Amino acid sequence: MKGYLQVYTGDGKGKTTAAIGLAIRAAGAGLSVLFAQFVKGQQYSEIAALERFSDRITVRQYGRGCFIVQEPTEEDIEEAAKGLAAVRKSLRSGAYQLVILDEASIALHYKLFTVDELLSAIRERSPDCEVVVTGRRAPQELIDAADLVTEMKEVKHYYAKGVQARTGIEV
Amino acid sequence: MKGYLQVYTGDGKGKTTAAIGLAIRAAGAGLSVLFAQFVKGQQYSEIAALERFSDRITVRQYGRGCFIVQEPTEEDIEEAAKGLAAVRKSLRSGAYQLVILDEASIALHYKLFTVDELLSAIRERSPDCEVVVTGRRAPQELIDAADLVTEMKEVKHYYAKGVQARTGIEV
Repeated sequence: MKGYLQVYTGDGKGKTTAAIGLAIRAAGAGLSVLFAQFVKGQQYSEIAALERFSDRITVRQYGRGCFIVQEPTEEDIEEAAKGLAAVRKSLRSGAYQLVILDEASIALHYKLFTVDELLSAIRERSPDCEVVVTGRRAPQELIDAADLVTEMKEVKHYYAKGVQARTGIEV
Repeated sequence: MKGYLQVYTGDGKGKTTAAIGLAIRAAGAGLSVLFAQFVKGQQYSEIAALERFSDRITVRQYGRGCFIVQEPTEEDIEEAAKGLAAVRKSLRSGAYQLVILDEASIALHYKLFTVDELLSAIRERSPDCEVVVTGRRAPQELIDAADLVTEMKEVKHYYAKGVQARTGIEV
């Protein structure tokens, strides 16, 4: 079974959430999944939930966590590079039928690595490996390379009403 | 904690998948979840996966499954009505902090029940219950009533290349 490249982007809610859903569905079908998170490292509830599938879903987190409000440091860039190198190896290994690169588009946006580096890792993957890239602001080169692209578009959001992120719902 | 109404709609991929991700995240945080599926009853992999969370996620499926290519029958309408009555009870019970009404918008589109019936059930819910409605073609009344609306927009889809739905990835 040939693996495709899926991209979930846009400003709306549901990108990482959909990626978790995909991981769970694949695990339910007996596939092996790598869930690699770039940048964000604070999704405690979802990571806790994925642990129930530790026989089928491997979770790896790279970097120091969220720095959306500040500039990435040298350390962030080094951590992301290490992460991408590890992911490249996993993509080629044939051990996973689904690899999720959660928030990789945001890592690109913050120049933690280049789109060429990411795409070369993806292109060299085992042929049966499906790849899912999430994050706002997916660059055009990534969209051009993808087989499936969904934009999560924010139509209405209760954050405008002053609702804070809630444990178990947003984080 | 006040519960809100979230709607995921649009023609793109990721609506049910995001709902599964939300269910898993909530379960990871220790919340009780009801995952009620209208219309579609053929998502074997995801239902199999949700079974690992049977201590926190209750799955219920209403109706005979997918009839997208044909007209709904009397039986479909009766099953959906029974489903909505059961969901109404669960929404009021206080037993769930998250209730997902998967493909309820499609049920509305096929006139299995009315948007007034759905919204009255949602409005009468326990105040701390978060509700998520998924499905294409969410009617305007539902969008108006929602606190958060995300449109999954299809930017590019490999079905155009002739790729069939694959076990563990789409179904």
